[in-house]
Amino acid sequence: MRPYVFVNLAMSADGKISTRERRQVKISGTADFQRVDRIKAGADGIMVGIGTVLADNPSLTVKSADLKAARRRGGRDEHPVRVVVDSAARTPPDADILVKGEGRRIVAVSASAPAARVSTLRERAEVIVAGEEEVDLGRLMDELGTRGLRRVMVEGGGTLIWGLFRDGLVDELITYVGAVVIGGRDAPTPADGDGFVAENEFPHLDLAGVERIDDGVLLRWTVRKKE
Amino acid sequence: MRPYVFVNLAMSADGKISTRERRQVKISGTADFQRVDRIKAGADGIMVGIGTVLADNPSLTVKSADLKAARRRGGRDEHPVRVVVDSAARTPPDADILVKGEGRRIVAVSASAPAARVSTLRERAEVIVAGEEEVDLGRLMDELGTRGLRRVMVEGGGTLIWGLFRDGLVDELITYVGAVVIGGRDAPTPADGDGFVAENEFPHLDLAGVERIDDGVLLRWTVRKKE
Repeated sequence: MRPYVFVNLAMSADGKISTRERRQVKISGTADFQRVDRIKAGADGIMVGIGTVLADNPSLTVKSADLKAARRRGGRDEHPVRVVVDSAARTPPDADILVKGEGRRIVAVSASAPAARVSTLRERAEVIVAGEEEVDLGRLMDELGTRGLRRVMVEGGGTLIWGLFRDGLVDELITYVGAVVIGGRDAPTPADGDGFVAENEFPHLDLAGVERIDDGVLLRWTVRKKE
Repeated sequence: MRPYVFVNLAMSADGKISTRERRQVKISGTADFQRVDRIKAGADGIMVGIGTVLADNPSLTVKSADLKAARRRGGRDEHPVRVVVDSAARTPPDADILVKGEGRRIVAVSASAPAARVSTLRERAEVIVAGEEEVDLGRLMDELGTRGLRRVMVEGGGTLIWGLFRDGLVDELITYVGAVVIGGRDAPTPADGDGFVAENEFPHLDLAGVERIDDGVLLRWTVRKKE
């Protein structure tokens, strides 16, 4: 059974997740940081695309000592299983996501990823091969379900999130809209990739929550299932 | 004195104002349509960029008979002054914005716009020349102020809105966030253009209002003035 997949991200008021140089920027504040840490601690897995690993080198660890302790008391690792979607096995072996903090790691690659790089990654992570040229996201979610992951949080970037929407795999979209304008036709957005062209392809959402946090607003959307 | 400039637009939950093919899509619903008509009727001018004229051919007229009647009772034209920002004078002479509905039109061009096209446009609209290669938006706003426009509503697109933010000319940003996902790295967003690179360049906003309308949510931001 596929896990429940929720995307969480922060964007500027004009819909950008970073600058055109893909530099990480402060969009939210302390209260939102704590919210993200809480929902991360409640997830079984946390997923990012290789672009985010290369640009930001995130560790995706739970930060709060209390939340880590609560996870341990519940018989879990301190951190959710960290999952990188990495078709060509480009994750650097010393990436923070592979070396920081305890817990399992999974790198999902395609069948065409170079064998040498895949072997290196196997020393640091479980490797799941799914798809020929690109990671087959539906098959990856099946594999994660088989491994007991029921709730997977997706942190980005825009290309992975686009792929998940394209393949109908997103259950919930949580966007923190921050009080800045970033601009830029080439700046990354919450869903990049090819994009939908016809209106009947657009995923439809239901607004499940609106909450002011810090200087911005948190929008929680559930994704309607296609008939 | 420069007019009060407010930007109003509808974007998808992932920050797109249309598809990568720039096709106009339905992001909001009836209640938001009426809201937009009301604020348009309350404006002295309504401004778009040439890209929007060429892609959507909008008339930018007030739609409600009551609102039009109220404007007439107040001694005004039925529609706000329609303003096109059009550096190279590419507005088609038969564009709806020039031919539909009563009221004044202004086309803002740069000094390098071809004289023949500018002459043709002068038959249909007042032409303001501001800037050498591109329309100087600050000077244009000064000119609009001189002509008695106190409130100018900007409908898009992303390139014009970017220019207005870059030049510090926006007082208020109103975004309707609709319940769909569009996606696409090349799809237009609320602020395109070059974009800001350094965090200290970002315009900072204050959240002035949050309201559920139709299936989405309306966010109203005021722009903090730079010291």
